[in-house]
Order: sequence, then C-alpha cells, then structure tokens
Amino acid sequence: MCAIVGVYGNDNAARIASIALFAMQHRGQEATGISSSCNGKIHTIKNRGLVSEVFTDEALKVLAGNMAIGHNRYSTAGGDSILDAQPVFAKYKLGEISIVHNGNLINKDEVRNDLIDKGAIYQTGMDTENLIHLIAKNSKDRLRDRIKEALERTIGAYCFIVQSRSKQFVIRDKYGIRPLSLGKLNSGGYIVASETCAFDLVDAEFIRDVRPGEMLIFDEHKDEPESIQLYEPEYRPCAFEYVYFARPDSVIDNKNVYRTRENMGRTLAKNDQNSPIQADMVVPVPDSGVPAALGYSAQSGIPFEYGIIRNHYVGRTFIEPTQEMRNLKVRMKLSPMKSLIKGKSLLVIDDSIVRGTTSKRIVKMLKDAGAKEVHFRVASPEIKYPCYYGIDTPTQEELISYRMTKEEICKYIEADSLEYLTVEDLVNSIGNDRNYALESFNGDYFVK
Amino acid sequence: MCAIVGVYGNDNAARIASIALFAMQHRGQEATGISSSCNGKIHTIKNRGLVSEVFTDEALKVLAGNMAIGHNRYSTAGGDSILDAQPVFAKYKLGEISIVHNGNLINKDEVRNDLIDKGAIYQTGMDTENLIHLIAKNSKDRLRDRIKEALERTIGAYCFIVQSRSKQFVIRDKYGIRPLSLGKLNSGGYIVASETCAFDLVDAEFIRDVRPGEMLIFDEHKDEPESIQLYEPEYRPCAFEYVYFARPDSVIDNKNVYRTRENMGRTLAKNDQNSPIQADMVVPVPDSGVPAALGYSAQSGIPFEYGIIRNHYVGRTFIEPTQEMRNLKVRMKLSPMKSLIKGKSLLVIDDSIVRGTTSKRIVKMLKDAGAKEVHFRVASPEIKYPCYYGIDTPTQEELISYRMTKEEICKYIEADSLEYLTVEDLVNSIGNDRNYALESFNGDYFVK
Amino acid sequence: MCAIVGVYGNDNAARIASIALFAMQHRGQEATGISSSCNGKIHTIKNRGLVSEVFTDEALKVLAGNMAIGHNRYSTAGGDSILDAQPVFAKYKLGEISIVHNGNLINKDEVRNDLIDKGAIYQTGMDTENLIHLIAKNSKDRLRDRIKEALERTIGAYCFIVQSRSKQFVIRDKYGIRPLSLGKLNSGGYIVASETCAFDLVDAEFIRDVRPGEMLIFDEHKDEPESIQLYEPEYRPCAFEYVYFARPDSVIDNKNVYRTRENMGRTLAKNDQNSPIQADMVVPVPDSGVPAALGYSAQSGIPFEYGIIRNHYVGRTFIEPTQEMRNLKVRMKLSPMKSLIKGKSLLVIDDSIVRGTTSKRIVKMLKDAGAKEVHFRVASPEIKYPCYYGIDTPTQEELISYRMTKEEICKYIEADSLEYLTVEDLVNSIGNDRNYALESFNGDYFVK
Amino acid sequence: MCAIVGVYGNDNAARIASIALFAMQHRGQEATGISSSCNGKIHTIKNRGLVSEVFTDEALKVLAGNMAIGHNRYSTAGGDSILDAQPVFAKYKLGEISIVHNGNLINKDEVRNDLIDKGAIYQTGMDTENLIHLIAKNSKDRLRDRIKEALERTIGAYCFIVQSRSKQFVIRDKYGIRPLSLGKLNSGGYIVASETCAFDLVDAEFIRDVRPGEMLIFDEHKDEPESIQLYEPEYRPCAFEYVYFARPDSVIDNKNVYRTRENMGRTLAKNDQNSPIQADMVVPVPDSGVPAALGYSAQSGIPFEYGIIRNHYVGRTFIEPTQEMRNLKVRMKLSPMKSLIKGKSLLVIDDSIVRGTTSKRIVKMLKDAGAKEVHFRVASPEIKYPCYYGIDTPTQEELISYRMTKEEICKYIEADSLEYLTVEDLVNSIGNDRNYALESFNGDYFVK
Repeated sequence: MCAIVGVYGNDNAARIASIALFAMQHRGQEATGISSSCNGKIHTIKNRGLVSEVFTDEALKVLAGNMAIGHNRYSTAGGDSILDAQPVFAKYKLGEISIVHNGNLINKDEVRNDLIDKGAIYQTGMDTENLIHLIAKNSKDRLRDRIKEALERTIGAYCFIVQSRSKQFVIRDKYGIRPLSLGKLNSGGYIVASETCAFDLVDAEFIRDVRPGEMLIFDEHKDEPESIQLYEPEYRPCAFEYVYFARPDSVIDNKNVYRTRENMGRTLAKNDQNSPIQADMVVPVPDSGVPAALGYSAQSGIPFEYGIIRNHYVGRTFIEPTQEMRNLKVRMKLSPMKSLIKGKSLLVIDDSIVRGTTSKRIVKMLKDAGAKEVHFRVASPEIKYPCYYGIDTPTQEELISYRMTKEEICKYIEADSLEYLTVEDLVNSIGNDRNYALESFNGDYFVK
Repeated sequence: MCAIVGVYGNDNAARIASIALFAMQHRGQEATGISSSCNGKIHTIKNRGLVSEVFTDEALKVLAGNMAIGHNRYSTAGGDSILDAQPVFAKYKLGEISIVHNGNLINKDEVRNDLIDKGAIYQTGMDTENLIHLIAKNSKDRLRDRIKEALERTIGAYCFIVQSRSKQFVIRDKYGIRPLSLGKLNSGGYIVASETCAFDLVDAEFIRDVRPGEMLIFDEHKDEPESIQLYEPEYRPCAFEYVYFARPDSVIDNKNVYRTRENMGRTLAKNDQNSPIQADMVVPVPDSGVPAALGYSAQSGIPFEYGIIRNHYVGRTFIEPTQEMRNLKVRMKLSPMKSLIKGKSLLVIDDSIVRGTTSKRIVKMLKDAGAKEVHFRVASPEIKYPCYYGIDTPTQEELISYRMTKEEICKYIEADSLEYLTVEDLVNSIGNDRNYALESFNGDYFVK
Repeated sequence: MCAIVGVYGNDNAARIASIALFAMQHRGQEATGISSSCNGKIHTIKNRGLVSEVFTDEALKVLAGNMAIGHNRYSTAGGDSILDAQPVFAKYKLGEISIVHNGNLINKDEVRNDLIDKGAIYQTGMDTENLIHLIAKNSKDRLRDRIKEALERTIGAYCFIVQSRSKQFVIRDKYGIRPLSLGKLNSGGYIVASETCAFDLVDAEFIRDVRPGEMLIFDEHKDEPESIQLYEPEYRPCAFEYVYFARPDSVIDNKNVYRTRENMGRTLAKNDQNSPIQADMVVPVPDSGVPAALGYSAQSGIPFEYGIIRNHYVGRTFIEPTQEMRNLKVRMKLSPMKSLIKGKSLLVIDDSIVRGTTSKRIVKMLKDAGAKEVHFRVASPEIKYPCYYGIDTPTQEELISYRMTKEEICKYIEADSLEYLTVEDLVNSIGNDRNYALESFNGDYFVK
Repeated sequence: MCAIVGVYGNDNAARIASIALFAMQHRGQEATGISSSCNGKIHTIKNRGLVSEVFTDEALKVLAGNMAIGHNRYSTAGGDSILDAQPVFAKYKLGEISIVHNGNLINKDEVRNDLIDKGAIYQTGMDTENLIHLIAKNSKDRLRDRIKEALERTIGAYCFIVQSRSKQFVIRDKYGIRPLSLGKLNSGGYIVASETCAFDLVDAEFIRDVRPGEMLIFDEHKDEPESIQLYEPEYRPCAFEYVYFARPDSVIDNKNVYRTRENMGRTLAKNDQNSPIQADMVVPVPDSGVPAALGYSAQSGIPFEYGIIRNHYVGRTFIEPTQEMRNLKVRMKLSPMKSLIKGKSLLVIDDSIVRGTTSKRIVKMLKDAGAKEVHFRVASPEIKYPCYYGIDTPTQEELISYRMTKEEICKYIEADSLEYLTVEDLVNSIGNDRNYALESFNGDYFVK
C-alpha cells in the first residue's frame, strides 16, 4: 500500500518528511527512503527497515535542503531487493529527478515492454521506473509538460510526487483511488501526505485533499502551489482504506476513518437485531477490529470487552511479507483473556477475512480458552477478487470467499455463526455520497 | 519491576523460559538473561535488549539442559551496566549456582556493608549478589539449608529462583508482595513465573500461586515439587500490580487483573454520578487506561471512544530509563483523534499520575486538538510515597501528589476537573478479602 | 582500480568468484558484488564492505548457478552510493544482463550526454551504465553483435565481463591497459580474473592473458571459449600495475611483478653507485616498497633492515577514500624501529610519491626516532600527470611532481637526498620488449 | 598472553590507554577493556572485539578522569564469556578497585578453592579474581599493605596494575617473566605498558623496565612514582617474547626484539655453514619469520626473497581461539610466490613449530607451487613442554616435539631437511647475560 510524503519550502524538509513517514509507518514497514534537493543536487538515502532505524540524525544531516520527498515501502510480491526501495532517482536530459509512488499501474508491463523494445534498460522491479523513462524519453522542454505526456501512457491507481532540483510535482490519478492530502506547515511551507495523521505530528494544518486528476506544482518563485486539473475527476476512493488500511485518526475525503468503522459495526449489529443469538460480549480482534466492535456494542447494547490481548513486542509480524512467518507468530501476537471469556458466548469482530487462516486460528484459540460460542462478524463484505489498485492481496485462488460460500467458511473456521456486511452496507457505512473503488468485493475493475 | 521464570524437567527448558519471558516483556525491557543447567554445568546468556533479540536459535542451542531460569530486567536507577543483568552466576563451595530475583531488599545496604566488612567483594550493583554471598558464606552442607539461613538476613519484597546444577529452589517472601505462580507444562515438567500470562503461550496449566513464605524445591528425584513453608504467611499482594503493571490477562491471587481495572473504572463512575459534569465520551489513555474506561462507560452510560491513538512503532519509550527520553517521544506515541473529540467534553481515564508531566501533556494535546473540556479521572489513589518493594518510582519530591493537593494538580495539568480513587475504593475494586501492599498511596511501609 | 572476475561452467561459480575476489581485495575495498546466472535468471548481491563480510554462506546460497561474475570496487571520486557498486544489472530487450568493469572510459561523458539526449536515464554514477545503454539501444538480434557495436562507441581503458542468462562475454581493450588473465579450474570450467594471484587460491591453472582487443565468449554449447579478435592489438600494459598496484605474486604479460619491483630497486642502486652517500641500511616503506628495497640491497650490498613496522590492525586506511582519514591514521599504521635506526643513515625506499604528504611524514617520523640521515629513493619516475586509464590519482595540482622539481620536493619532505627512476629505467626494469602505458609519468595520453 | 597498560596523571588517560592498547593489539584480540577513575568513581568499559571497535569516541567520553588502566585479552581455554574480559572491577571494604593482569598464577586453583571454602564466590573464570578476593579479605587499613599480603599468597608469572579511586599500584613478579616498562608522557604523567612499542604512539619516553619484584605506586600527592622492592629479584624474562610474541620494535630488558630475532637467524646460518645443502633463497614465513630470515641471509650470503605472501585481509585468523578455524583459513592467509620459487631450493624460516600442522601445510603449499626442495629452519628450540607462565600453548600431547624426534618431524612435515636452534643458541642469540624463562623448551618450571 505504501505511504508517500512531500515537503516543500521548509529548511527542515527531510526531518519533517521523516516524522510524517513515522506517522504513516503502518502503511509499509519493509523499506523507507527520502530524497532532498539542495543547491541543485538531489541527495537520497533509502534502506530496509523502519523509519526510526533508517533516519538517524546522521542520515538527516546528509539530506539537507528545503524540499524533500519520502516513501514507506510495503512489501509486494518478488520485490525484496534493496534496489526496489523508493525514491527512485535518475539523471536525465533536464537534470536530476527523484520520484515516489503509491499505487499500482495497470498497464505497467505493456509500457515496460514497449520501452524495452525501444532500447530502455530497467534496473529495478518497480513500476515507478516506467514514469521516469517516459519523462526522459519525452522531448518537451519543461518537466511539467513531460510529466503530463508521460501520464498519458500511465493507467492505474497512482499518487506520484516528482522532485527536480528546485520543484515538486504532485499528481493523483483521476479516480483518486489512493488518498493524498495537502497541508500547510506552521513552521513554513507545505506538506503533501498519503494520510492526514501525518499532519498532526509535524504541526501542519489540513487544507484539502489533492483532487482526483490534479497536478500541484510547488515552485520557489510562487508562494502557493499552482494547481492544474489534468483530467476530469471520476472520484472513486478506495473503500479498503476505510475498512482496514488507513489509521483511524486519518480523514479521507472528509470522512473520519474511525467513524466509518464504527458505522460498519453498527450496521452489523442492525443486521443481527432479529438474530436469535445471545452473545455475552462483543470482542474485537485488536487493533483494527476495535472501532467496529465499539459500534456494534453501542448499537446492540451487548457489552464491549477486551477478550483478546495484543502483544506489541512481536515486531513486524503483522505486516510481514511471507505467509509462513505470519503463521508462526500469530499466537505470540494475540492472547485470549481466559478468565473473561470462559463459558461465555462471544461476538467477535474483525475487519476482514482474506485467506481465512487467521480467523480459523482465532476461533480455535478462543474455544481452547473456554469460550462457549464464537459468533464471527466481519466489518466488510466478502473479498472475492484481488486488488490491482495498490493493495497487496493474494491470488484469487487464495481468497477464501472466492472458493467458499459464507456457510462453508463458517464451517471451515469453526465459528458458530458468521456474518459479513453487504457491499451496500459498506457504502452506506462510509457515506453514500460517492462511488467507491470496491473491486475486491464486486470485481468492478473500472480503471481503464 | 522485572519478571522471573523457572522451568524444570523439560528438555526444551530454555526455549520455554524464553517464550515465557517474551510473554512478560512488559515487566522489563532493558535486559534479559537465562541460565540453563546441563550435565552438571550451568550455562548463562544475558544481554541488553528484548527477549526476541537476545534469544536467537543460536543462543538457545548453547542453553541446553532440562532446567532453566530467566529474567527480564526493568531499568532501575544507576544500573546501566551489562554486568547488572540477571541471572547472577557464581561458583562457590557447593558448586555452581545461578539466581534470578524480582523485588527489592530493604536491608540490602546494611547486609552488603556487613559482607564487605567481612571481606566480600561486589562485582555488580544488584541486591541479588547479597543472597549469593550469604549462601556462599554459610557453612551448611545442603544448599536448601544455606538458602534458609541466608533468607534470615534478607528483608524485603522478593521472589527468588535459585538454580544449582540439578535443582531449583523457588522462594516468595512471607508477604507475597510480588506475584509468582506455579504451572504444569503439558509437554512435561513445571514452570514458575511472575505472571500467569506466560502460561498460555507455553501451553501450561495454572496450578496455584506460590504461597507467601513458601519454598518450592524441584529435584530430579521427585516427580512433584517439595513444598516447605519457611515463614508464616502475612499475605499483602501489591495493589500496583492490579493498577498498572501486570498484563490484563494475568490472574493474581485468583483475581483477574482486567476485571479489577474495570471495577476501578466503575467506581470512578459511581463517585461521579452526582457530578454536574456532562461528558460526551469516555476516552482512555491507551493501553493501560482501557479497562477502567470500559468500566466507567458501562457504569455511567457515557459512550466509550478511542479518542487517543497509540503508535506502536515508537520502540521502547514507554518503559525507558530516563525522564528526558520520555518527554521527547511522548507526542510520537500518542495521537489525538481530532475529528472525534473536536468540540466535545471528554472524560479521560489514565491508570495513575506519577510526576504529572505526561498528564499535563495529554490534556494540552487534547485541548489543542479541539476538546471543549477535559475531565481527568485516575483509576488509582494519589501516589504520595515512593515504593521500596520493587516498583521503580521516582523520589518523593518528584511525586506530584506529595507536593500538591488534588486541586493544585488539576490546575497544573490544566484539566477541567480531576478525580482519583480513594484507597478504600481501590481495595474494594480489587477485592476486599485481603490486605494489600499500598505503601505508595498511604506510606504504610510494613515490611520489616 | 578495481578487480573483476568471471567463472563459467562450475557449479560453485559464485563461491569460486568470491574467493578470487578475496585474493584481489587489494584492488578495491569499498564495495563488492557478484551476479550468478541460474535457470535463466540472474541473481545479484552487492554491498559495501570487504569480500569476507559481504559473501557469507547465506549470500552464496542465493547466488546459485554455474556461472558468475564479480567485482571489487575501489573508491573513486564522488561515488559513495551503494548504487554505485557492481555488477550492474538490467533487464533489456534480449532479457537479463549483468556487467562488471575495470578501467575508465575516456569518452564517457560524451556518450552519456548523447544517450541522455536521446532519452536514457542514468541511475548510477558509473560509466559501466553506458555500455548497458548502448547494448540495449542496439537493434541487433544477438548479444555478441550488440556488444561489438556498443564497443565502437567506447573509448578508454577497459576490461568488461558481460553475463547474460547463459553466456559470458569477456572483452579487453585493444591496448590491454588493465590486466586480465584466463585460467582453467581444476574443478571444472574457466576463470577470468584481473590478476593471476586469484588463480592459486581457487586451484586454477593459468592459460594465458586475454589478448588486447579480444572478445572471449563462454557458451554452454562449447567446451572451450570462442575467441574473436575485435580490434588489432596495440599492446600497452599499464606500468603502474608493476610499480604499485598488482600483488607481487601476480604475473602480468609473462612478467612476475615481484621481480620487476626488485629490478626497480636494483636500478636505483646502480644509479647510486657513484654517489658519495654512505647509507647504513636499506629500509623499505612497507609493504609495497619491500621488493625494491631487497633489490637495492642485493645490488648495493647495503644491508636490508625492517626499520619501519606496519600495523595491520588499522583497518582500511591504506586505501580509504578521503585524504583526511589517511592523514589521521598514518602514524597508527607505520612505526619506526627506534633502536635499529637511531644514529643511522637510512636509504628509504618507497614505490612512489603522489602528493608528498605521506613521504614528508615518514621522513619526519624517522628523524624523530633518531635517524641521522634519510635518503629517499622512489622506485618509479616522478608522477606529473593524472591517470585517466583507471587508476585513482588526484588532480594535477595535487601531484607534487607537477608543482615542484626534484630538489624542491627533497627539501619539502626534508630528506637528505632524493632520487627517482627515469622513465627509461622503469621500462628497462619491467622489460624493454613492450610499449607501456606511462601517461602518469610522461603525459602520453595515447588512448583515442 | 595479553597486554596491560596504566596511565596516571594525564587528563586524556583513557584515550592514551586506548592508543597504547591499539599498539599492543598483537598481544590479544579477543576482548579489550579500560577502567578510568574520576571524582572518586571508577568507570569501566569492556567488550569483545578489537581496540578500534570497542573504544569509540563515545566510549572514551564515559571514561573520564586522569588515570586509567587497560587490557587486551588473548583467548585462553574455556574463557569465552564476556564476563571474562578485564579490567575486573569490584566494590570492597576500602572502596572501589579495578585490576588488570598479564600472566598466569600457578597456584590459582589452590587459592581459589581455599577462598571458596571460606565462603568466597567467583563470578568469572579469571585468576585475576583471586587477587581481588585476597585484597578484600585482608584487614589492613591501607590498600598497599593489602596488596602486599595478597601477593604473599600469589605464585606465578604476573604483572598487575591495581587502580583505586585515586591511586595506581603496578606490580611485577620477582622473576620478571612477563615484560613491563615505565615511560613518561610528554603530555604529562606516566605510562606503564607491557611493551615499549606502545610508548612511541602515545608520545612517551621510555624510562626503564619495571623491576622484577617491584611495586610502583602512583599517587596524586607525589610527582614521581614511589618504588618499593617487594621481593628480591630473580630475573628470568620469558625467552618466548623474543622468539615470537613481542612486536619487533619493542625493547625488553634493553634488548631490541628485532635484533635478537636477526641473531637467531644468523645462528641458524652458522649451524648450517658446513651443510651440503645448496639453497637458492632464504624465504621467511611472514610476518614473524622475517627478521630471522634476514639474519640467515646476511650471515650465509644466500639471497633473501619474499617467497610467501601474506594476505592481510583475512581478519583475526592468526590469533583465533580454535584449531579448526586456523586450519580452514591458513591457505587464505599465505600464498606462495610461484614464479619466484619454481624449480628452486628454498631455505624456509619460521619462528617456531608447535603442533606441526601449519608447517606441514606450508611445505606442501611450496612444493605444490614448484619448489624443488624445502629446507625448514626454526628460529627457536623444540617446544616440548607446555607454558604455564602466561603463554597459551596446547597440551603436551599436542606438542609435536613431545611426540616426535626432529627426524620424525621432518618426515611428517615432508621437508627436505629440518633444523632448530639449541637452547644454548637461543640464549646466546638473545644475550647470554641473563637467565631466561625457557620452560617450553627444557621443562624447567622454576616458579615456586
């Protein structure tokens, strides 16, 4: 999923970028990097590891300058090379350039093959390299024009920040699938970040979301960013950001993420109101199931209890690349509150079910700990389709809802009952004022 | 505060001990160590760092044998030497010995000075070294008798596990101030650990708490541990374990820690029931304020909301040694949920107020984020006295409740109102069937 | 200066390459890397550090396959990025490719600018990237033809090894400036390496030097490498390899490096034979001045003594990038043998004088230690011109022999006398059967 | 073998100590440590690793104060614990104390057992702990008197430096087996070090060797160290320091180590002068065989040649603890100069033969490289007895000269001839003005 940030017009640009990346660490923990521009030269530091590990004081000294872009990398298939960290830097005809990217380009292989046919070489596995090649091969005199034309060949869900030696160009695709917001730093200058939760920590005021199809240009000669509407907006923000990925204190498209999750829980409770089930307590799968569980509890009157404790010393399991390691460590991460749940009927709430293996393990863990019944509620619809718009999902065959009906899944995970939200429920919970990117739930791959 | 563990009669003793220490990481993150006994030789590995960092597969290979003791070290004043990690190992007349200790010895300086007067040398700053010297200087033929006599000179709150080449001796002081529980491993053998939360992860059944004043002896020639009641019990478990330190899924003295915290919150709500305050939501200071906030919400009917988000990537701030570092990182750890709390009146619940600086910062952060009112509730009484029984508290001068009245503190932290539990409230919340160690609240330094 | 190696047709290709790189560590200590090819896929591991640090058993497991190329990087100006390590890997039209390079391309900026003008992007600071671009942009069907045409645009001193998924192409420029030898592994397959000292350690037999202007092609379908003479040879091996850079046990162009250095020392002695100087002992600046000092001693009859001790625990000073660090550590590296030299007249032999600062420090150190006289002899001519053919020299202004006469230098370094070899002496010492690359001494920049 | 250093009366005491330890790194590479005294408090930093790794600027900041003692640890059997690094620190009746020790105590087990019988505990495996216990158990009021009486119980080869909060006590055993010299720092204050090679680097003037049986006391109230002759000297310096262990530029007992090694080589040549052997060149086993080879060459007229190259990038093999690792890496360390030795008859000189395995491998390597004949000469007598005076030798069974005659060894290592020095030769080479500690050669275990 990744996080990106751009800071412009502040002498502590790299430091501010690093703190913003720290606040968005949940979006990617595999690698991180920052490029600053100073006196016409771009400096880049990128490495595997957490923001707090990579950006030491020493590293920040190297990253001098009053503008910086940064990236947190979420592991995706195959890309375990250090070279696959961002920003991607290159020298080209107009000088030096560095790019960060959040999203996924649908036509990346086609463009790559075409460029390779024409003699390009690719040194990384990242689709970000496409954009640099398209910019470099263009013959326009101004970078802004090259970017525009490069985007003509770029289909997908994307947020780019392109930094030259003196400017920054921020672009969000016309659907606005991935979030991107603009803020004003109280210490001077601007910040653009994937999530608004970054603004608080760096003492910035939220101005507005970057518009779908918009290009913002930060230029030393102008006090305010220039805005160019490159494409007619067809706004379809990603529903999955609300369900699971964004931090609850972020605001996307004027919607507070926490509140939308609470609504999802309330909706689950409304759907259950005629159910014969008599649960003793609502138990969230921590941490992401908590807001929905609070909503369910508030709606239903069934008390909310912390029946599962999360151990925060586990390290990076939660978001780690391979399936095996997730299996190995799941028991070290979640502990059942035995004395609380013994003999009780639990209404367990999780944000989603992907492969089903974790859910199965949680149900087993709770029953082993003495739970009488485990009713599983999922604060999202069934995930039947892989996401090609920037969220790391497994292949369709690995998606349990592709292979099984709800009843079969309930049996598989050994729950006493299982309910999901419908797609309509989800849309209503977030806010029915908008089309959303819902492809994981309904297969509507609308990006073309 | 520290955590200790002993595993006896299991071929994976050190591995089980390391997993138990992992489950008790919250009790100490500065250093960790394990001694195993194998073929009449004791092997020790100890180092600074987290359990998951120190106990690699390679380290565990060195720690062969079917018995092991382990320790997590919580930083205490001055002791930043690697030599101050436990277990403490020594060769003495009867062979090799290794000891872990949780607690604090009241008369440690007196004993130390006396031993030094008689020619002893001290190579560490730990009071654990006292016990080894007392054992070594004793002339009895059996280790058990030496330990008994050594304990005659040992006044304080303590849980010791002493490991020789073939036996383990577990001792808890007559007051039972620090928790210590006995379990049976489903894979064979026994485990003794500071908290029962360790038992679940290593697949052990809780048998019972080690009794105040009891010595348990594990011996290869006996299937079950031998129990010797060294001292008449005067049971006074530490109230602070319930308030703050123990993991919520642990059970101490048959009382579920989570439930006691919930009760503390309920009591706060009952005390507030005639209050004119109209709070819009109950907001916990995460993570330890959560159960009390749930209790307050359930009792009062005011909705529980996650108004403060905790960032879990911060690292070891929470429990780090120096005050400065805590200051520096507090904003990186806790983020206010702006859109949730804006214009709202908040009933904020924390587990305790020690110096007052963190509380002040939290109130400011919430008001900066738009909270209309912040009513601060503390799920424990005012801390007016330093703890000498094993919990790391600052000097009395640093305790805000020693220096200020409740009203003054309320003003200092800039809250709109402030309430604590009374000592009686606290006792009733935990369970009024017991005398507790309450010295931090009432100055009753009963250990003599 | 760098070292390169290629191994073909051996199941332990990467391991053999790593041992060969270890034997050639003196040619570059900043970074090292290896690419292997296995089942149509190229794997690359490269990093800063010594060969023994980077190529752990774990790393070698990743580098499976029966062919591998490797590189040791010597730091050159500006290139401190991890991205500037070799091999350079890319995907291009014909598949995957990886290249290692030793040397320096004279027209690199021109080619680079031209390629950039045509839309290429450069992600590293290495001239090796030129060759990949030229190969990628070519339209020929066969890699060998693309390489040939790419070389048409490539002017300079170079040794390349290009590895595709199944073949290796070895190319040496027509002057043969940098050394490159072919060997046969006793365990099967072939090895190509910058220096023959690599062959002994990997149990390979020296076959012959790769010929100037030759391309060797290793192909799985042929038992022996195919040889194509791309260019008419104009053999001019680098004299500086004999003077200083190659390991003394290497053989370049059938000339044993140690013997040539001994000859240089003998020639210095012959030149001195009518000198009125009465030296008590010949003292080498260790390690590289030793063979010449032995030659001087054998020729003159003045005893050879180890008057300067080299401390081998210093680490990587000798070859480290910045001038400052060299200054700081020089005294830690070399110690005078006080009791040996006190009151004595010393004939000190070093391989070369570049900036003069080290020589000045050595003379001072020896005089401080009690030497009566220090006569400085240099086993090479005065270095007046920077090398553009692959050896890292400072700018012309920094070369002391560009700024000063021999007499001025003698005064500057505070020696009692100073003599160099003439260029003719040098050529005769190496062997007067050949034109050599002598540009550092005579400014003959013959590469066009 | 270890190195020790004491610096007194200089504000950069710890920094100077660290540089002196760096100069004596050859005496021990397993671990290193320094204790400084500042304002009545002793600070200690010790760790595994090289001096340049452990003593960073940060570490030296901690080690404030105008006096410091330091130690380099050579690995000895069994002691691989971090706790076995020196200095050894303890609190005892008179305050704080820290001790470094070079040597070996003959009666250490007896004293240890006696102390343990009386109730002492031992936390390390080092005999240095004995001295601290003896000092601590003594009842005298002054540390100097306690040290004196403690030494009454201490039999062996030793150099101690004892540091209290304000003084340093330097003691050398009455035989003076291990070297120890006194110097005056040009920047103020005094230095005591195992080898004089440390003095040059820290800019100190050699004053004299510490006398056998002497105690030097450094005291802030006196400008010069007080000297107390504790025992009647029976001077017997260790011959092995001259043969192998000391750095060639050190001076021990007024004898330059390099010169004594040269003499050993000359003596070997004299012994060979009627030999029918016609060697083409004298080849040292680098680095320690070099001076003797130069002596042999000078005496015999046979040219000295560097027939074996040593690779200095190997790391710490030379001095590493286990036999296995030495085996593995020997070929990576030494390379034969093929073209030099091919078809030649070599006179190879090494400093000693211990187990015979390395010698055997060297002969094989040279013959594989084409040597016609390999005549092995050893610049020391046959080692038939283990050293108990501080040098790490294997058990007697592992000493090849204990198990085999010279002829058998020659056959075993496959040399064409083999000669040693006689014990008399060795004594004459060093200087026949002294009794030496020769126990490894003649079994004269004189220390009682």
